[in-house]
Amino acid sequence: MSALPASLDARLAALLGDGWRTDPAERLTYGYDNSRREAMPDGVALPRDRDQVVELVRACRGFRVPIVARGRGTNTTGAAVPIAGGVVVSFERMDRILDIRPGDRCAVVEPGVINGDLQAALAPHGLFWPPDPTSAAFSTVGGNLACNAGGPRAVKYGASRDNVLALTAVTGAGELIVCGSATTKGATGYDLQRLLVGSEGTLALIVEATLRLTPKPTARRALRVIYRDVASAARGVARLMAQPVTPSMLEFMDTQAVRLARDVGGADLPTDAGALLMIEADGEPHMLDAAIAALAAAANGDGLVALDDAPDEAARGKLWAARKALSPALRTLAAGKINEDVVVPVSRIPELVDGVQAIARAASLPIVCFGHAGNGNLHVNILYAPGDASQCERADAALSQVFALTVSLGGTLSGEHGIGLAKRDFMPQAVAAPTLALMRQLKAAFDPDGILNPGKLLP
Amino acid sequence: MSALPASLDARLAALLGDGWRTDPAERLTYGYDNSRREAMPDGVALPRDRDQVVELVRACRGFRVPIVARGRGTNTTGAAVPIAGGVVVSFERMDRILDIRPGDRCAVVEPGVINGDLQAALAPHGLFWPPDPTSAAFSTVGGNLACNAGGPRAVKYGASRDNVLALTAVTGAGELIVCGSATTKGATGYDLQRLLVGSEGTLALIVEATLRLTPKPTARRALRVIYRDVASAARGVARLMAQPVTPSMLEFMDTQAVRLARDVGGADLPTDAGALLMIEADGEPHMLDAAIAALAAAANGDGLVALDDAPDEAARGKLWAARKALSPALRTLAAGKINEDVVVPVSRIPELVDGVQAIARAASLPIVCFGHAGNGNLHVNILYAPGDASQCERADAALSQVFALTVSLGGTLSGEHGIGLAKRDFMPQAVAAPTLALMRQLKAAFDPDGILNPGKLLP
Ligand SMILES: Cc1cc2nc3c(=O)[nH]c(=O)nc-3n(C[C@H](O)[C@H](O)[C@H](O)COP(=O)(O)OP(=O)(O)OC[C@H]3O[C@@H](n4cnc5c(N)ncnc54)[C@H](O)[C@@H]3O)c2cc1C
Ligand SMILES: Cc1cc2nc3c(=O)[nH]c(=O)nc-3n(C[C@H](O)[C@H](O)[C@H](O)COP(=O)(O)OP(=O)(O)OC[C@H]3O[C@@H](n4cnc5c(N)ncnc54)[C@H](O)[C@@H]3O)c2cc1C
Repeated sequence: MSALPASLDARLAALLGDGWRTDPAERLTYGYDNSRREAMPDGVALPRDRDQVVELVRACRGFRVPIVARGRGTNTTGAAVPIAGGVVVSFERMDRILDIRPGDRCAVVEPGVINGDLQAALAPHGLFWPPDPTSAAFSTVGGNLACNAGGPRAVKYGASRDNVLALTAVTGAGELIVCGSATTKGATGYDLQRLLVGSEGTLALIVEATLRLTPKPTARRALRVIYRDVASAARGVARLMAQPVTPSMLEFMDTQAVRLARDVGGADLPTDAGALLMIEADGEPHMLDAAIAALAAAANGDGLVALDDAPDEAARGKLWAARKALSPALRTLAAGKINEDVVVPVSRIPELVDGVQAIARAASLPIVCFGHAGNGNLHVNILYAPGDASQCERADAALSQVFALTVSLGGTLSGEHGIGLAKRDFMPQAVAAPTLALMRQLKAAFDPDGILNPGKLLP
Repeated sequence: MSALPASLDARLAALLGDGWRTDPAERLTYGYDNSRREAMPDGVALPRDRDQVVELVRACRGFRVPIVARGRGTNTTGAAVPIAGGVVVSFERMDRILDIRPGDRCAVVEPGVINGDLQAALAPHGLFWPPDPTSAAFSTVGGNLACNAGGPRAVKYGASRDNVLALTAVTGAGELIVCGSATTKGATGYDLQRLLVGSEGTLALIVEATLRLTPKPTARRALRVIYRDVASAARGVARLMAQPVTPSMLEFMDTQAVRLARDVGGADLPTDAGALLMIEADGEPHMLDAAIAALAAAANGDGLVALDDAPDEAARGKLWAARKALSPALRTLAAGKINEDVVVPVSRIPELVDGVQAIARAASLPIVCFGHAGNGNLHVNILYAPGDASQCERADAALSQVFALTVSLGGTLSGEHGIGLAKRDFMPQAVAAPTLALMRQLKAAFDPDGILNPGKLLP
């Protein structure tokens, strides 16, 4: 059934038992991800431990058969799609939390642990793992690490790369490597663990992770700030980031997003709202008043229309309603959506948003921007009708212009979603040729035969 | 005069003008570092800009001549000593602060900027760069990055690697690479900038750094906590690290260190003091009371002898006196001192300190431990008489045992001082063979001819 050499098939069947799948119907379910791309793998492996992963990689390497690691396929870039066929290695059976050590502020986990399950296990210890992608209930720690996933909390607590201490992984040469140690500091050789983070399964398969944990704040409080226009909101962001109280979230909506949330999503927003910031502080309850006061003071400035405080969780829910109304509203606007997550220095947000609106006008397509303003990480949503060839073409052209604009502002292609297949061909726009060439050489050092997730990340 | 090929000498002289030095007396001053090792370089280059660095590396590469980057030679491991001769590249003329951007919380600097000068330039903006080695007044940002330097503040704010956004560097192949972007988030290809941090000039020469800044807390307050014994203090550390208020410093002194500070240094400490913690909180003045209360509550527990609060800067100075008395006191005890900076998970500190004392007894040599407990990063000081061959031998053996103990506790060789020459041969104790082999391959990708700082870091 599978296109794999028969002897490899036999060897993997012997190695993995019922963790080796070649039935087409089953293979199919491991062939797509949230990018809506798909491709048929030749086999699916569900290893139970690192030894099986080592053996599996060595076996595949012998036949130069591609290997694509898979968490839960929630990534948006095609990074988990087996475009060159070969074996998908799903980590769903390596999903144990091996150790939680509160005094060391760390946890040791297998890669298949779901982010949300880990958070639930940490809660009784008063700890959490900072990466908080909206997909936390479905995505795996391995996938989070491989994509350097972030989320709104990253502005205060960092993304996945900032919250890893050590990784055990299997390279494309089938070698088990141990990178880093379970310590919050280290100056012992090259930092391989942070290099693996964000490498999208192209360098090594992560089989164990020692994660850095943070004490969970016991309280949080939100502010919603409405501005006349994007420039005023962006100046607010810069003021907020220049003062000592770092918000635990700092989310932005541009004029289009505000209008959409109000007119389509039914959010209760004034008609002169040209931009919106959702700000949160977290910490110990008795410190929150002072933190919120500092944030409100920083948010206040030229162009402010309204500032609402949410003293309790019910009020917090109401304030977030505008942001929550946005995604469903977006979907009603157009069937096609290119959702990018470019990132620029915070001070360049106004130029990014203005430039994007100019691109939108030129393309005669709506483009809606919102996202993690504290990191300068904006989701740029280009809306179009997928059936309309001209619109598709204009959307593609607009995307390329958005990337060019981002890079010209000192930013880069992706803040948290990664490159995968979707942005691979834009890499030369963001990364100069000698640096790209070096990345290729590093890839060759980890994966001499190029069997790990071929065709991803590098152009 | 120099052992360099005449044509290379001529080319570098033409390239660098008065920034090319071959006079032996001048060369000598660039041949040592704080490890007390030394070696004579064949020439010293003082480039003024990145283009000169690129040309210089290409020229040296043509002749396979070694290149050793140099900040101010304050490292303690021999990392800046040109053991294979060749050219020392001192960055003292590339010492400009190129940009400070408060709204983006970042600064762009040349590598030769002194850490302390940068902090002074940042202060008016209410910002600081977290790495705070005790050498901050003399050491360079380039050297800090190349060693992943830390300091007491790292427990809250991270070490150098945690505070870099982008690096521009020249590889051993003479290629200029740009790694990362001036954004606090990124998922665009491999993370080369954090790989360069801690690589001790063996992969590339850093010619520009975009540093991540943090708002400077306007107030700080200290606690001094005395415990009956090391185990009680270590339990205190674990409690402190498991609660939400992260101290801005959490320094530890073991029984030997306490005794020395009291009996030799004259510090005012009770005779039943078996271990000591210096704890600091920083933040906005109105939040400090609550923070100090939380830290005091966590520090309080079985084995507590005394807890002193320093409400003002004068009292703070008095509390720190015991810690400050330590270094001079150490010097009176023995002329020879091996000062290591091993790191273990915080929960293993008691086993580390107990084990070190067993090693001390077996070696009949005093060993004094103190350091950055919040990171599990302890300075282990083995004291001996340099003129006494037997003591020297026992000190060396004890050192090796300390490393073995550290690794057995899940720790690693160095928390912040790096490997250099001093710990190079211990690397196989801490890093398994396949991982070391991969590090060598990465080195070869950056530096195909092995001309960058040969003989350092890797065994
Ligand atoms: C509704 C929704 C909301 C989202 N919100 C966010 C968000 O807020 N922030 C954000 O950053 N992302 C977000 N994402 C994107 C996505 O969830 C993340 O990228 C996530 O980290 C992917 O995890 P996964 O387990 O699904 O990995 P997959 O999609 O299965 O794989 C992703 C990549 O990781 C590799 N990989 C997986 N496991 C391993 C391993 N063990 N070793 C090596 N490589 C491995 C794969 O090969 C692939 O390249 C969202 C996605 C959805 C669908
Ligand atoms: C009194 C004293 C106290 C100290 N306290 C601490 C402390 O608390 N914490 C701590 O971490 N360290 C401490 N150190 C160690 C030392 O100061 C640090 O390692 C510092 O980062 C070295 O900086 P430097 O400019 O002197 O670099 P150098 O010693 O000149 O060089 C160090 C290494 O960096 C490389 N390098 C330098 N510049 C570059 C560049 N531009 N590109 C590539 N590689 C480069 C060199 O080749 C070498 O390998 C202390 C040292 C002293 C003497």
